[in-house]
This record gives sequence, C-alpha cells and structure tokens, in this order.
Amino acid sequence: MWHLYQFPLCPFSRKTRLLLGEKGVAYSLVRENPWDHRDEFLQMNPAGRTPVITDNQGIIMADSVAITEYFDETVDKNPMISGSAGYRAEIRRLVALFDQQFFGDVTAPLLHERMTKRLIYRQPPDAKVLREAMKLANNHMDYIDYLIDHRAWIAGSTISMADLAAAAQISVADYLGGIDWTGHEQTKAWYAMFKSRPSFRPLLSERMESITPPPHYEMVDF
Amino acid sequence: MWHLYQFPLCPFSRKTRLLLGEKGVAYSLVRENPWDHRDEFLQMNPAGRTPVITDNQGIIMADSVAITEYFDETVDKNPMISGSAGYRAEIRRLVALFDQQFFGDVTAPLLHERMTKRLIYRQPPDAKVLREAMKLANNHMDYIDYLIDHRAWIAGSTISMADLAAAAQISVADYLGGIDWTGHEQTKAWYAMFKSRPSFRPLLSERMESITPPPHYEMVDF
Repeated sequence: MWHLYQFPLCPFSRKTRLLLGEKGVAYSLVRENPWDHRDEFLQMNPAGRTPVITDNQGIIMADSVAITEYFDETVDKNPMISGSAGYRAEIRRLVALFDQQFFGDVTAPLLHERMTKRLIYRQPPDAKVLREAMKLANNHMDYIDYLIDHRAWIAGSTISMADLAAAAQISVADYLGGIDWTGHEQTKAWYAMFKSRPSFRPLLSERMESITPPPHYEMVDF
Repeated sequence: MWHLYQFPLCPFSRKTRLLLGEKGVAYSLVRENPWDHRDEFLQMNPAGRTPVITDNQGIIMADSVAITEYFDETVDKNPMISGSAGYRAEIRRLVALFDQQFFGDVTAPLLHERMTKRLIYRQPPDAKVLREAMKLANNHMDYIDYLIDHRAWIAGSTISMADLAAAAQISVADYLGGIDWTGHEQTKAWYAMFKSRPSFRPLLSERMESITPPPHYEMVDF
C-alpha cells in the first residue's frame, strides 16, 4: 500500500492522484503542510515539497514528474506517456508548461494570496496580484482552447499526462476563484468531461479548511 | 542535423547540450534571446523559453526535460536515465531539484542581477539579492557534498541526467561569480572531473557578451 504525503490544494499532488486513479493504484492520503517544515518530511524530501510517496518498505519517491513517470513505467493500465518518441516529447512539453508556467503565472500567486496569507499570515489578499493572475489564466485558457480546437485531447489523439497536469492546475485555480470560464467553450467542454472521470471525483469533493470554493467548482455542468 | 535555439548562459540549454554531447548527437547552435520575444520563436515554443530544438523537417521540441528524455529514448549511447524504475525516479527527483529549486534559489536571481540588469535594464545588481543567492548556493552545495560522500555520482553508481542537470546549473552560477568553493571538496572533485569531459569543454570556452567569468571558471584545477 502506498502513502501519499500531500495537502488538498497542492496541484502537483492532484496531478499525481489523477494518475494513480487512472492506473488503479491503491494509496492512502497523509496530510502534509510543506510550510510546517517538519523534520521527518524534510528527511524524506530535502526539497520540502509535496507530493512524496512511500510504500513504508524502503521506497520513498519525491517530485510529481519522478513519481508519475515511475507509475507510468511500472503499471501498464492506461498509459499516459505513450506513443512515438516525438509524441512523448509533446506530452512532456505540455506537462512542463502546466507544471511550471501555468503554476508560476496563476496557481502559485493564487495559493499565496488566497491560502498562505489566510492560513499563515492572517492577511487579506492583494487585489492587484489576483487580477494579474486571472489575466494570465485567461491567456493560458486561450491556448488550451486552441489546442482542443485542433486535437481530441491536450497533447493529441489520446488522453495523456498533459491532460492530468492541466486539469490539476486548473482545478486548484478554479477552487480559488481564479478562473473566468466565459468565452472558453472548448476548454470548458474538455474540463466538464474530465470532472466526470472517476479519478477526478474524489478530489473535487475534498475541501481545504477555511477556504470555500465557488458554487460551480464541483458541478459537472457549470 | 539538429538546430538548438539557446543563449550561452541558459542552464537548461547547457543541460541539453551536455546530453547531446554525451550521446554524440550533432547539432548547430542558433542564438536566441528569449527576452526579445521574437514571434518566430514564440510560434515554435509558446512558453517563450530556451532550449528549443528542430531538425528543419517538421520536428520541433521545446523544454529541456522533454528534449533530453527524447534523446535518451532514441539514442542508445551513454544512457542517462537508466536502471530500475526506482533508480530512474531518483534520477528524475534530482533533475527536478536542480532544474527547479537550484535554479529558483540561485541561478535565476544571479541571471537577473548580473545578466538581465546589465544587458537590458542598465542597472547595477542588488547586493542583498546576490548575498542571499550565494547563501542558498552554499546550502545546495552542502547537499551535493552529502550525496557525493555516499555515492559515486549524484544519483547513484552511474553518471546520469542528475549530474548533467547539476553541472549545468552550477556552471552558470560559477560563471556569474555565485559559487564559493571553499569547504566543498567533494563537490569540487566531482565538478573538476566533469569539467574535463569532452561534452563540457565547448560550453566552458564560450562567453556571454559583456559578462566576464572569474579566472577559475574554465580551469580544471581550481
């Protein structure tokens, strides 16, 4: 049995959980707040970041790319980095785009303003930072609209890690009220389909303490 | 023939070049300043980042992880992500540690203060930011000392992508005067060996315009 160290609004833990769900890998959740800098957690991952996964028998893995590549290599069901080498490169390009740029532009500032400031610093969010994050979210959604216009899924003709990476970031941004769905019909249709997948349902029903998502957050029709 | 879009102090392009060198893949360099936001470059990579590689016959790949995984999958010589699934996860964990945390803590602030401010904004560097980056570099070097104390190479018994990722970040930080080697004998011995590898020599002899590295930068004995 695997144990995943995470917190509900960590987008990288969500991406990992979506993969584990698609693969049918059983795991339990262990709540970890990286901002607590717990010694035992830092020993497992010197980077101090979630997710970390362990089997309690000596395997400890950290970093969402390392973990998801591991399970895609070792569990055949629903391959998420598959196809030709060129297609795999396209999947990984898009994973990096969502893990790094969407996260840096949108999810990270939203988490700082609406979660960290509330739970740790007891400060109100900065409206200017929120506006900028939502503006950049809109640009990213335009690009996803473009991709979905040309492809069945984000990286091509099959569902892949790129879809899981995108859905993970968008779902956290949407929880924090950072997504304006107006005018993004393609992305909306793709995300509605995603929301109804069994791997996604458990994530959507979870809540982070003292932070309430908007009413449409959990609805498949929104 | 491959064409790699990059600039001399891009650590992700350096990591990619180290891999191409180890693999014996021929390529030409195309100078690209991502800060110019060139339309033609943004069409190749909407993320606007180096490196991008193309064969001019329809293949365009972006993101250093996607590119390096592609060449590791398609060129057998000197595998850099190899071994058991668990060992591959350890390699990828460390690649992420250097690509993301070392870069965010050390290389990115050094590039901003000593390259971007000089070339674009014509401003002097902020001494406080430089001191903080050098302090964090020292913490990262402590961790590399620890790894090299326990392993032949950074991820384990064989040279891997983790070594290339670490050497790429360290070499840019060292070029920009951000590394104090005092007290890091293990890392120094590992890096000295790396500096003498044929894949590394061409990088060390290159210069970024108007920015001079410290005298020890190119020396194998330093």
